[in-house]
Amino acid sequence: MTVRPGFIETLACAQQRNNSLLCVGLDPQAEKIANYGVDLTGFLRAIVDATADQVCAYKPQFAHFAAMAAESALEEIIDYIHNQYPGIPVILDAKRGDIGSTAEKYAEEAFGRYAADAVTVNPYLGGDTLTPFLQYTDKGVVVLCKTSNPGSGELQNLVLDTGERLFERVARLAANQWNSHGNVLLVVGATWPQELARVRAIVGDMPLLIPGIGAQGGDLQQTLKHGLSANGDGLILSASRSILYAGDKGADFAEKARLACETINLAVQDMLA
Amino acid sequence: MTVRPGFIETLACAQQRNNSLLCVGLDPQAEKIANYGVDLTGFLRAIVDATADQVCAYKPQFAHFAAMAAESALEEIIDYIHNQYPGIPVILDAKRGDIGSTAEKYAEEAFGRYAADAVTVNPYLGGDTLTPFLQYTDKGVVVLCKTSNPGSGELQNLVLDTGERLFERVARLAANQWNSHGNVLLVVGATWPQELARVRAIVGDMPLLIPGIGAQGGDLQQTLKHGLSANGDGLILSASRSILYAGDKGADFAEKARLACETINLAVQDMLA
Repeated sequence: MTVRPGFIETLACAQQRNNSLLCVGLDPQAEKIANYGVDLTGFLRAIVDATADQVCAYKPQFAHFAAMAAESALEEIIDYIHNQYPGIPVILDAKRGDIGSTAEKYAEEAFGRYAADAVTVNPYLGGDTLTPFLQYTDKGVVVLCKTSNPGSGELQNLVLDTGERLFERVARLAANQWNSHGNVLLVVGATWPQELARVRAIVGDMPLLIPGIGAQGGDLQQTLKHGLSANGDGLILSASRSILYAGDKGADFAEKARLACETINLAVQDMLA
Repeated sequence: MTVRPGFIETLACAQQRNNSLLCVGLDPQAEKIANYGVDLTGFLRAIVDATADQVCAYKPQFAHFAAMAAESALEEIIDYIHNQYPGIPVILDAKRGDIGSTAEKYAEEAFGRYAADAVTVNPYLGGDTLTPFLQYTDKGVVVLCKTSNPGSGELQNLVLDTGERLFERVARLAANQWNSHGNVLLVVGATWPQELARVRAIVGDMPLLIPGIGAQGGDLQQTLKHGLSANGDGLILSASRSILYAGDKGADFAEKARLACETINLAVQDMLA
Protein backbone atom coordinates (compact mmCIF):
# COMPACT_ATOMS: atom_id res chain seq x y z
CA MET A 1 0.00 0.00 0.00
CA THR A 2 1.28 3.43 -0.95
CA VAL A 3 0.52 6.40 1.25
CA ARG A 4 -0.63 9.19 -1.03
CA PRO A 5 0.71 12.57 -0.06
CA GLY A 6 -1.98 15.04 0.89
CA PHE A 7 -2.77 18.18 -1.03
CA ILE A 8 -1.04 20.46 1.47
CA GLU A 9 2.21 18.48 1.28
CA THR A 10 2.09 18.42 -2.52
CA LEU A 11 1.52 22.15 -2.54
CA ALA A 12 4.42 22.81 -0.19
CA CYS A 13 6.74 20.72 -2.36
CA ALA A 14 5.67 22.58 -5.49
CA GLN A 15 6.25 25.90 -3.73
CA GLN A 16 9.77 24.83 -2.78
CA ARG A 17 10.66 23.27 -6.11
CA ASN A 18 9.59 26.27 -8.18
CA ASN A 19 10.43 28.84 -5.49
CA SER A 20 6.97 30.27 -6.04
CA LEU A 21 3.84 31.05 -4.06
CA LEU A 22 2.00 31.85 -7.30
CA CYS A 23 -1.14 30.06 -8.46
CA VAL A 24 -2.32 30.80 -11.97
CA GLY A 25 -6.09 30.96 -12.25
CA LEU A 26 -7.39 29.48 -15.48
CA ASP A 27 -10.40 31.67 -16.35
CA PRO A 28 -10.75 31.28 -20.12
CA GLN A 29 -12.66 34.02 -21.94
CA ALA A 30 -13.51 33.13 -25.51
CA GLU A 31 -13.47 36.71 -26.81
CA LYS A 32 -9.94 37.29 -25.50
CA ILE A 33 -8.59 33.93 -26.62
CA ALA A 34 -9.83 34.68 -30.14
CA ASN A 35 -7.27 37.52 -30.27
CA TYR A 36 -4.46 35.02 -29.88
CA GLY A 37 -5.32 32.86 -32.87
CA VAL A 38 -5.68 29.64 -30.86
CA ASP A 39 -8.56 27.49 -29.68
CA LEU A 40 -9.45 26.94 -26.04
CA THR A 41 -7.41 23.79 -25.53
CA GLY A 42 -4.43 25.26 -27.37
CA PHE A 43 -4.63 28.39 -25.24
CA LEU A 44 -4.75 26.51 -21.95
CA ARG A 45 -1.93 24.12 -22.85
CA ALA A 46 0.27 26.98 -24.03
CA ILE A 47 -0.32 28.89 -20.80
CA VAL A 48 0.47 25.82 -18.70
CA ASP A 49 3.54 24.90 -20.74
CA ALA A 50 4.88 28.45 -20.44
CA THR A 51 4.30 28.80 -16.70
CA ALA A 52 4.59 25.35 -15.12
CA ASP A 53 8.02 26.01 -13.59
CA GLN A 54 6.83 29.38 -12.24
CA VAL A 55 3.84 28.29 -10.18
CA CYS A 56 2.86 26.20 -7.16
CA ALA A 57 -0.66 25.40 -8.41
CA TYR A 58 -3.24 25.98 -11.11
CA LYS A 59 -6.78 27.04 -10.33
CA PRO A 60 -9.26 26.45 -13.16
CA GLN A 61 -12.42 28.47 -12.54
CA PHE A 62 -15.49 26.36 -13.18
CA ALA A 63 -17.93 29.05 -14.39
CA HIS A 64 -15.69 30.12 -17.24
CA PHE A 65 -15.79 26.60 -18.64
CA ALA A 66 -19.44 25.92 -17.84
CA ALA A 67 -20.73 29.11 -19.45
CA MET A 68 -19.33 27.90 -22.77
CA ALA A 69 -20.24 24.24 -22.31
CA ALA A 70 -16.54 23.36 -22.15
CA GLU A 71 -16.50 20.70 -19.44
CA SER A 72 -14.46 18.44 -21.69
CA ALA A 73 -11.79 21.14 -22.01
CA LEU A 74 -11.76 21.42 -18.22
CA GLU A 75 -11.28 17.67 -17.87
CA GLU A 76 -8.55 17.72 -20.51
CA ILE A 77 -6.49 20.56 -19.07
CA ILE A 78 -6.51 19.05 -15.59
CA ASP A 79 -5.47 15.72 -17.06
CA TYR A 80 -2.78 17.49 -19.08
CA ILE A 81 -1.35 19.21 -15.98
CA HIS A 82 -1.31 15.92 -14.05
CA ASN A 83 0.42 14.09 -16.88
CA GLN A 84 2.89 16.73 -18.04
CA TYR A 85 3.64 18.44 -14.74
CA PRO A 86 3.08 15.93 -11.94
CA GLY A 87 3.57 17.56 -8.59
CA ILE A 88 1.78 20.78 -9.56
CA PRO A 89 -1.61 20.48 -7.87
CA VAL A 90 -4.88 21.65 -9.38
CA ILE A 91 -7.47 23.55 -7.33
CA LEU A 92 -10.92 23.42 -8.90
CA ASP A 93 -12.48 26.79 -8.14
CA ALA A 94 -16.17 25.89 -8.08
CA LYS A 95 -17.28 27.27 -4.68
CA ARG A 96 -19.63 24.36 -4.09
CA GLY A 97 -22.08 24.26 -1.21
CA ASP A 98 -25.11 22.04 -0.72
CA ILE A 99 -26.70 19.69 1.80
CA GLY A 100 -24.85 16.48 2.58
CA SER A 101 -26.35 14.03 0.08
CA THR A 102 -25.83 16.54 -2.72
CA ALA A 103 -22.40 17.60 -1.49
CA GLU A 104 -21.39 13.96 -2.00
CA LYS A 105 -22.19 14.39 -5.68
CA TYR A 106 -20.18 17.62 -5.84
CA ALA A 107 -17.25 15.85 -4.21
CA GLU A 108 -17.54 13.07 -6.79
CA GLU A 109 -17.58 15.70 -9.52
CA ALA A 110 -14.50 17.55 -8.24
CA PHE A 111 -12.33 14.66 -7.11
CA GLY A 112 -13.63 11.84 -9.30
CA ARG A 113 -14.70 13.23 -12.63
CA TYR A 114 -12.28 16.19 -12.76
CA ALA A 115 -9.55 14.58 -10.63
CA ALA A 116 -8.85 17.91 -8.95
CA ASP A 117 -6.45 17.95 -6.01
CA ALA A 118 -8.54 20.52 -4.13
CA VAL A 119 -11.84 22.32 -4.49
CA THR A 120 -13.19 25.62 -3.19
CA VAL A 121 -16.34 25.39 -1.06
CA ASN A 122 -18.81 27.79 0.56
CA PRO A 123 -19.36 27.50 4.34
CA TYR A 124 -22.83 29.11 4.55
CA LEU A 125 -24.62 25.75 4.90
CA GLY A 126 -22.45 24.66 7.83
CA GLY A 127 -19.80 22.08 8.60
CA ASP A 128 -22.01 19.03 8.04
CA THR A 129 -22.16 19.97 4.37
CA LEU A 130 -18.35 20.12 4.15
CA THR A 131 -17.91 16.60 5.52
CA PRO A 132 -18.40 14.84 2.15
CA PHE A 133 -15.44 16.85 0.82
CA LEU A 134 -13.30 16.58 3.95
CA GLN A 135 -13.56 12.80 3.90
CA TYR A 136 -11.29 12.79 0.85
CA THR A 137 -8.35 13.10 3.19
CA ASP A 138 -5.71 13.37 0.45
CA LYS A 139 -7.56 16.28 -1.17
CA GLY A 140 -7.64 19.93 -0.17
CA VAL A 141 -10.88 21.65 0.86
CA VAL A 142 -10.53 25.40 0.42
CA VAL A 143 -13.27 27.16 2.39
CA LEU A 144 -14.38 30.70 1.55
CA CYS A 145 -13.67 32.95 4.52
CA LYS A 146 -13.23 36.61 3.46
CA THR A 147 -13.68 37.00 -0.28
CA SER A 148 -11.99 39.62 -2.46
CA ASN A 149 -15.08 41.40 -3.83
CA PRO A 150 -15.96 44.93 -2.68
CA GLY A 151 -19.24 43.86 -1.04
CA SER A 152 -17.89 40.80 0.78
CA GLY A 153 -18.38 42.50 4.15
CA GLU A 154 -22.15 42.60 3.80
CA LEU A 155 -22.35 39.21 5.49
CA GLN A 156 -18.73 38.27 6.18
CA ASN A 157 -17.98 41.32 8.36
CA LEU A 158 -21.19 41.18 10.38
CA VAL A 159 -20.39 41.37 14.08
CA LEU A 160 -21.69 38.51 16.20
CA ASP A 161 -22.94 38.83 19.76
CA THR A 162 -19.58 37.41 20.86
CA GLY A 163 -17.77 40.36 19.27
CA GLU A 164 -16.33 38.17 16.53
CA ARG A 165 -17.05 38.95 12.92
CA LEU A 166 -18.59 36.23 10.77
CA PHE A 167 -15.41 35.60 8.74
CA GLU A 168 -13.48 35.24 12.01
CA ARG A 169 -15.97 32.63 13.19
CA VAL A 170 -15.53 30.78 9.90
CA ALA A 171 -11.76 30.86 10.39
CA ARG A 172 -12.12 29.57 13.93
CA LEU A 173 -14.51 26.78 12.90
CA ALA A 174 -12.16 25.85 10.08
CA ALA A 175 -9.18 25.63 12.40
CA ASN A 176 -10.89 24.01 15.40
CA GLN A 177 -13.84 21.98 14.07
CA TRP A 178 -13.56 21.17 10.41
CA ASN A 179 -9.85 20.34 10.10
CA SER A 180 -9.65 16.96 11.79
CA HIS A 181 -8.06 15.46 8.67
CA GLY A 182 -5.64 18.37 8.23
CA ASN A 183 -6.88 19.14 4.74
CA VAL A 184 -8.63 22.51 5.18
CA LEU A 185 -7.46 25.79 3.66
CA LEU A 186 -9.17 29.17 3.60
CA VAL A 187 -9.79 31.83 0.97
CA VAL A 188 -8.95 35.40 1.99
CA GLY A 189 -8.91 38.13 -0.67
CA ALA A 190 -5.72 40.14 -1.16
CA THR A 191 -7.94 43.21 -1.11
CA TRP A 192 -8.41 42.87 2.69
CA PRO A 193 -4.98 42.92 4.42
CA GLN A 194 -6.35 43.73 7.90
CA GLU A 195 -8.80 40.86 7.73
CA LEU A 196 -5.99 38.65 6.45
CA ALA A 197 -3.98 39.46 9.56
CA ARG A 198 -6.93 38.47 11.75
CA VAL A 199 -7.40 35.19 9.92
CA ARG A 200 -3.69 34.38 10.16
CA ALA A 201 -3.81 35.03 13.91
CA ILE A 202 -6.72 32.59 14.26
CA VAL A 203 -5.63 29.70 12.05
CA GLY A 204 -1.91 29.29 12.81
CA ASP A 205 -0.05 27.73 9.90
CA MET A 206 -3.10 26.81 7.79
CA PRO A 207 -2.43 27.64 4.12
CA LEU A 208 -4.48 30.52 2.74
CA LEU A 209 -5.51 30.95 -0.89
CA ILE A 210 -5.29 34.64 -1.72
CA PRO A 211 -7.12 35.71 -4.88
CA GLY A 212 -7.10 39.29 -6.07
CA ILE A 213 -3.39 40.12 -6.40
CA GLY A 214 -3.70 40.85 -10.13
CA ALA A 215 -6.58 42.55 -11.91
CA GLN A 216 -8.45 43.11 -8.65
CA GLY A 217 -5.65 45.30 -7.30
CA GLY A 218 -4.71 43.54 -4.10
CA ASP A 219 -1.48 44.75 -2.50
CA LEU A 220 1.31 42.18 -2.62
CA GLN A 221 3.45 43.68 0.12
CA GLN A 222 0.54 43.97 2.54
CA THR A 223 -0.51 40.43 1.71
CA LEU A 224 2.92 39.04 2.56
CA LYS A 225 3.25 41.18 5.67
CA HIS A 226 -0.08 40.07 7.10
CA GLY A 227 -0.54 36.68 5.53
CA LEU A 228 2.68 34.70 5.87
CA SER A 229 2.66 32.04 8.53
CA ALA A 230 5.23 31.97 11.32
CA ASN A 231 7.56 29.81 9.28
CA GLY A 232 7.37 32.11 6.27
CA ASP A 233 4.98 30.31 3.96
CA GLY A 234 1.33 29.29 4.07
CA LEU A 235 0.20 31.48 1.19
CA ILE A 236 -1.06 30.68 -2.29
CA LEU A 237 -1.11 33.92 -4.27
CA SER A 238 -3.62 33.60 -7.06
CA ALA A 239 -3.77 35.74 -10.19
CA SER A 240 -5.83 35.01 -13.30
CA ARG A 241 -6.63 37.73 -15.82
CA SER A 242 -3.39 39.69 -15.25
CA ILE A 243 -1.43 36.62 -16.33
CA LEU A 244 -3.65 34.90 -18.89
CA TYR A 245 -4.24 38.11 -20.82
CA ALA A 246 -0.89 39.84 -20.20
CA GLY A 247 -0.37 39.67 -23.96
CA ASP A 248 -2.26 42.27 -25.92
CA LYS A 249 -2.88 40.40 -29.15
CA GLY A 250 -0.86 37.97 -31.19
CA ALA A 251 1.06 34.77 -30.79
CA ASP A 252 3.32 35.75 -27.90
CA PHE A 253 0.54 35.51 -25.29
CA ALA A 254 2.16 32.56 -23.53
CA GLU A 255 5.54 34.28 -23.32
CA LYS A 256 3.85 37.37 -21.92
CA ALA A 257 2.04 35.20 -19.39
CA ARG A 258 5.34 33.69 -18.29
CA LEU A 259 6.87 37.15 -17.94
CA ALA A 260 3.91 38.22 -15.80
CA CYS A 261 4.53 35.20 -13.54
CA GLU A 262 8.25 35.95 -13.32
CA THR A 263 7.50 39.56 -12.40
CA ILE A 264 5.28 38.48 -9.51
CA ASN A 265 7.72 35.82 -8.34
CA LEU A 266 10.64 38.27 -8.39
CA ALA A 267 8.60 40.86 -6.52
CA VAL A 268 7.73 38.29 -3.86
CA GLN A 269 11.33 37.10 -3.59
CA ASP A 270 12.50 40.71 -3.19
CA MET A 271 9.97 41.34 -0.46
CA LEU A 272 10.89 38.14 1.34
CA ALA A 273 14.64 38.80 1.08
CA MET B 1 -42.28 44.36 -28.34
CA THR B 2 -43.60 41.65 -26.07
CA VAL B 3 -43.32 42.02 -22.32
CA ARG B 4 -42.02 38.72 -20.99
CA PRO B 5 -43.71 37.63 -17.79
CA GLY B 6 -41.35 37.32 -14.86
CA PHE B 7 -40.54 34.08 -13.12
CA ILE B 8 -42.72 34.83 -10.11
CA GLU B 9 -45.78 35.48 -12.31
CA THR B 10 -45.15 32.33 -14.33
CA LEU B 11 -44.84 30.37 -11.11
CA ALA B 12 -48.09 31.80 -9.71
CA CYS B 13 -49.94 30.89 -12.91
CA ALA B 14 -48.60 27.35 -12.83
CA GLN B 15 -49.65 27.01 -9.19
CA GLN B 16 -53.18 28.12 -10.07
CA ARG B 17 -53.51 26.09 -13.25
CA ASN B 18 -52.38 22.83 -11.64
CA ASN B 19 -53.75 23.66 -8.19
CA SER B 20 -50.36 22.69 -6.80
CA LEU B 21 -47.58 24.17 -4.71
CA LEU B 22 -45.41 21.15 -5.47
CA CYS B 23 -42.03 21.36 -7.17
CA VAL B 24 -40.44 18.09 -8.22
CA GLY B 25 -36.70 18.03 -7.75
CA LEU B 26 -34.87 16.19 -10.50
CA ASP B 27 -31.95 14.53 -8.72
CA PRO B 28 -31.08 11.58 -10.94
CA GLN B 29 -29.14 8.74 -9.34
CA ALA B 30 -27.77 6.25 -11.84
CA GLU B 31 -27.92 3.25 -9.49
CA LYS B 32 -31.61 3.80 -8.79
CA ILE B 33 -32.55 4.53 -12.38
CA ALA B 34 -30.92 1.25 -13.41
CA ASN B 35 -33.64 -0.55 -11.43
CA TYR B 36 -36.29 0.89 -13.71
CA GLY B 37 -34.90 -0.41 -16.98
CA VAL B 38 -34.57 3.02 -18.62
CA ASP B 39 -31.73 5.37 -19.43
CA LEU B 40 -31.27 8.80 -17.87
CA THR B 41 -33.13 10.76 -20.54
CA GLY B 42 -35.94 8.23 -20.63
CA PHE B 43 -36.24 8.36 -16.85
CA LEU B 44 -36.43 12.14 -16.71
CA ARG B 45 -38.91 12.44 -19.57
CA ALA B 46 -41.14 9.78 -18.08
CA ILE B 47 -41.12 11.52 -14.68
CA VAL B 48 -41.95 14.86 -16.29
CA ASP B 49 -44.67 13.41 -18.53
CA ALA B 50 -46.29 11.68 -15.57
CA THR B 51 -46.22 14.68 -13.25
CA ALA B 52 -46.48 17.84 -15.39
CA ASP B 53 -50.11 18.53 -14.46
CA GLN B 54 -49.35 17.94 -10.77
CA VAL B 55 -46.58 20.48 -10.22
CA CYS B 56 -45.87 24.21 -10.29
CA ALA B 57 -42.17 23.85 -11.15
CA TYR B 58 -39.30 21.45 -11.72
CA LYS B 59 -35.99 21.79 -9.95
CA PRO B 60 -33.12 19.90 -11.60
CA GLN B 61 -30.22 19.58 -9.16
CA PHE B 62 -26.94 20.39 -10.87
CA ALA B 63 -24.57 18.14 -8.93
CA HIS B 64 -26.49 14.99 -9.78
CA PHE B 65 -25.94 15.68 -13.47
CA ALA B 66 -22.39 17.01 -13.15
CA ALA B 67 -21.15 14.03 -11.13
CA MET B 68 -22.01 11.75 -14.06
CA ALA B 69 -20.89 14.18 -16.80
CA ALA B 70 -24.50 14.50 -17.95
CA GLU B 71 -24.71 18.20 -18.78
CA SER B 72 -26.26 17.36 -22.13
CA ALA B 73 -29.06 15.45 -20.36
CA LEU B 74 -29.61 18.51 -18.16
CA GLU B 75 -29.86 20.77 -21.21
CA GLU B 76 -32.20 18.31 -22.87
CA ILE B 77 -34.64 17.85 -20.02
CA ILE B 78 -34.97 21.60 -19.47
CA ASP B 79 -35.58 22.06 -23.18
CA TYR B 80 -38.10 19.22 -23.10
CA ILE B 81 -40.03 20.80 -20.22
CA HIS B 82 -40.09 24.17 -21.98
CA ASN B 83 -41.31 22.65 -25.22
CA GLN B 84 -43.77 20.08 -23.94
CA TYR B 85 -45.08 21.89 -20.88
CA PRO B 86 -44.72 25.62 -21.46
CA GLY B 87 -45.76 27.56 -18.40
CA ILE B 88 -44.09 25.15 -15.96
CA PRO B 89 -40.93 26.98 -14.88
CA VAL B 90 -37.58 25.34 -14.25
CA ILE B 91 -35.44 26.24 -11.24
CA LEU B 92 -31.80 25.23 -11.72
CA ASP B 93 -30.61 24.20 -8.28
CA ALA B 94 -26.92 25.00 -8.50
CA LYS B 95 -26.35 27.23 -5.43
CA ARG B 96 -23.90 29.46 -7.28
CA GLY B 97 -21.86 32.11 -5.55
CA ASP B 98 -18.76 33.92 -6.77
CA ILE B 99 -17.34 37.42 -7.22
CA GLY B 100 -19.06 39.66 -9.78
CA SER B 101 -17.05 38.96 -12.93
CA THR B 102 -17.39 35.22 -12.35
CA ALA B 103 -21.02 35.44 -11.27
CA GLU B 104 -21.68 36.87 -14.73
CA LYS B 105 -20.43 33.59 -16.19
CA TYR B 106 -22.62 31.59 -13.81
CA ALA B 107 -25.63 33.70 -14.83
CA GLU B 108 -24.78 33.02 -18.50
CA GLU B 109 -24.58 29.32 -17.69
CA ALA B 110 -27.93 29.17 -15.86
CA PHE B 111 -30.02 31.51 -17.99
CA GLY B 112 -28.25 31.27 -21.34
CA ARG B 113 -26.84 27.81 -21.75
CA TYR B 114 -29.42 25.94 -19.66
CA ALA B 115 -32.31 28.38 -20.26
CA ALA B 116 -33.45 27.97 -16.66
CA ASP B 117 -36.21 30.26 -15.42
CA ALA B 118 -34.59 30.64 -12.00
CA VAL B 119 -31.41 29.62 -10.23
CA THR B 120 -30.48 29.06 -6.59
CA VAL B 121 -27.61 31.21 -5.26
CA ASN B 122 -25.57 31.48 -2.06
CA PRO B 123 -25.49 34.86 -0.26
CA TYR B 124 -22.21 34.44 1.66
CA LEU B 125 -20.25 36.65 -0.77
CA GLY B 126 -22.69 39.56 -0.46
CA GLY B 127 -25.23 41.38 -2.58
CA ASP B 128 -22.75 42.70 -5.16
CA THR B 129 -22.19 39.11 -6.25
CA LEU B 130 -25.93 38.56 -6.73
CA THR B 131 -26.30 41.55 -9.06
CA PRO B 132 -25.25 39.67 -12.22
CA PHE B 133 -28.14 37.26 -11.62
CA LEU B 134 -30.65 39.90 -10.49
CA GLN B 135 -30.12 41.90 -13.68
CA TYR B 136 -31.96 39.16 -15.57
CA THR B 137 -35.21 40.74 -14.46
CA ASP B 138 -37.48 38.11 -16.01
CA LYS B 139 -35.62 35.33 -14.16
CA GLY B 140 -35.95 34.23 -10.55
CA VAL B 141 -33.02 34.41 -8.13
CA VAL B 142 -33.55 32.01 -5.25
CA VAL B 143 -31.24 32.94 -2.37
CA LEU B 144 -30.28 30.44 0.33
CA CYS B 145 -31.55 31.70 3.67
CA LYS B 146 -32.11 28.82 6.13
CA THR B 147 -31.20 25.49 4.59
CA SER B 148 -32.77 22.14 5.44
CA ASN B 149 -29.67 20.28 6.64
CA PRO B 150 -29.21 19.44 10.33
CA GLY B 151 -26.12 21.63 10.71
CA SER B 152 -27.47 24.69 8.92
CA GLY B 153 -27.54 26.67 12.14
CA GLU B 154 -23.77 26.60 12.56
CA LEU B 155 -23.54 29.83 10.58
CA GLN B 156 -27.13 30.66 9.68
CA ASN B 157 -28.40 30.82 13.29
CA LEU B 158 -25.48 32.82 14.65
CA VAL B 159 -26.76 35.80 16.63
CA LEU B 160 -25.54 39.20 15.49
CA ASP B 161 -24.81 42.14 17.76
CA THR B 162 -28.16 43.56 16.71
CA GLY B 163 -29.97 40.52 18.14
CA GLU B 164 -30.87 39.27 14.67
CA ARG B 165 -29.74 35.86 13.55
CA LEU B 166 -27.75 35.59 10.33
CA PHE B 167 -30.57 33.99 8.33
CA GLU B 168 -32.88 36.79 9.47
CA ARG B 169 -30.38 39.36 8.21
CA VAL B 170 -30.25 37.53 4.88
CA ALA B 171 -34.05 37.62 4.72
CA ARG B 172 -34.07 41.33 5.50
CA LEU B 173 -31.37 42.11 2.93
CA ALA B 174 -33.26 40.05 0.36
CA ALA B 175 -36.49 41.91 0.99
CA ASN B 176 -35.08 45.43 1.40
CA GLN B 177 -31.85 45.62 -0.60
CA TRP B 178 -31.59 42.91 -3.21
CA ASN B 179 -35.14 42.82 -4.56
CA SER B 180 -35.32 46.04 -6.57
CA HIS B 181 -36.37 44.08 -9.66
CA GLY B 182 -38.93 42.00 -7.75
CA ASN B 183 -37.28 38.72 -8.75
CA VAL B 184 -35.86 37.44 -5.45
CA LEU B 185 -37.07 34.33 -3.63
CA LEU B 186 -35.60 32.60 -0.60
CA VAL B 187 -34.83 29.01 0.37
CA VAL B 188 -36.07 27.91 3.80
CA GLY B 189 -35.96 24.22 4.71
CA ALA B 190 -39.18 22.49 5.73
CA THR B 191 -37.22 21.07 8.65
CA TRP B 192 -37.24 24.50 10.40
CA PRO B 193 -40.86 25.67 10.90
CA GLN B 194 -40.02 28.28 13.57
CA GLU B 195 -37.36 29.86 11.38
CA LEU B 196 -39.80 29.73 8.48
CA ALA B 197 -42.27 31.79 10.50
CA ARG B 198 -39.56 34.38 11.20
CA VAL B 199 -38.62 34.61 7.53
CA ARG B 200 -42.25 34.98 6.50
CA ALA B 201 -42.68 37.80 9.00
CA ILE B 202 -39.67 39.61 7.52
CA VAL B 203 -40.25 39.20 3.78
CA GLY B 204 -43.99 39.79 3.33
CA ASP B 205 -45.34 38.01 0.26
CA MET B 206 -41.99 36.94 -1.19
CA PRO B 207 -42.21 33.35 -2.49
CA LEU B 208 -40.22 30.80 -0.51
CA LEU B 209 -38.76 27.60 -1.90
CA ILE B 210 -39.15 24.91 0.75
CA PRO B 211 -36.99 21.82 0.26
CA GLY B 212 -37.13 18.91 2.62
CA ILE B 213 -40.80 17.92 2.67
CA GLY B 214 -40.07 14.42 1.38
CA ALA B 215 -37.11 12.23 2.27
CA GLN B 216 -35.71 14.81 4.69
CA GLY B 217 -38.82 14.59 6.87
CA GLY B 218 -40.05 18.17 6.93
CA ASP B 219 -43.54 18.61 8.38
CA LEU B 220 -46.11 19.68 5.77
CA GLN B 221 -48.69 21.02 8.19
CA GLN B 222 -46.14 23.13 10.07
CA THR B 223 -44.74 24.39 6.79
CA LEU B 224 -48.13 25.58 5.60
CA LYS B 225 -49.02 27.04 8.98
CA HIS B 226 -45.85 29.09 9.25
CA GLY B 227 -44.94 29.62 5.62
CA LEU B 228 -48.02 30.71 3.69
CA SER B 229 -48.16 34.37 2.83
CA ALA B 230 -51.06 36.58 3.89
CA ASN B 231 -52.93 35.82 0.67
CA GLY B 232 -52.52 32.08 1.10
CA ASP B 233 -49.72 31.25 -1.31
CA GLY B 234 -46.05 32.15 -1.63
CA LEU B 235 -44.71 28.64 -1.12
CA ILE B 236 -42.96 26.22 -3.43
CA LEU B 237 -42.88 22.83 -1.74
CA SER B 238 -40.00 20.83 -3.13
CA ALA B 239 -39.59 17.07 -2.94
CA SER B 240 -37.11 14.99 -4.89
CA ARG B 241 -36.19 11.49 -3.80
CA SER B 242 -39.60 10.69 -2.28
CA ILE B 243 -41.18 11.25 -5.70
CA LEU B 244 -38.52 10.16 -8.19
CA TYR B 245 -37.93 6.89 -6.42
CA ALA B 246 -41.42 6.23 -5.08
CA GLY B 247 -41.45 3.12 -7.24
CA ASP B 248 -39.51 0.20 -5.84
CA LYS B 249 -38.33 -1.47 -9.01
CA GLY B 250 -39.92 -2.05 -12.36
CA ALA B 251 -41.61 -0.14 -15.13
CA ASP B 252 -44.31 1.62 -13.09
CA PHE B 253 -41.88 4.14 -11.57
CA ALA B 254 -43.51 7.09 -13.36
CA GLU B 255 -46.99 6.10 -12.26
CA LYS B 256 -45.71 5.76 -8.68
CA ALA B 257 -44.10 9.18 -8.95
CA ARG B 258 -47.40 10.66 -10.09
CA LEU B 259 -49.20 9.01 -7.19
CA ALA B 260 -46.65 10.45 -4.79
CA CYS B 261 -47.34 13.92 -6.23
CA GLU B 262 -51.08 13.42 -5.98
CA THR B 263 -50.73 12.36 -2.35
CA ILE B 264 -48.83 15.52 -1.47
CA ASN B 265 -51.21 17.75 -3.43
CA LEU B 266 -54.26 16.20 -1.77
CA ALA B 267 -52.70 16.53 1.66
CA VAL B 268 -51.97 20.20 1.00
CA GLN B 269 -55.50 20.80 -0.33
CA ASP B 270 -56.97 19.13 2.76
CA MET B 271 -54.88 21.26 5.06
CA LEU B 272 -55.79 24.44 3.18
CA ALA B 273 -59.50 23.60 3.09
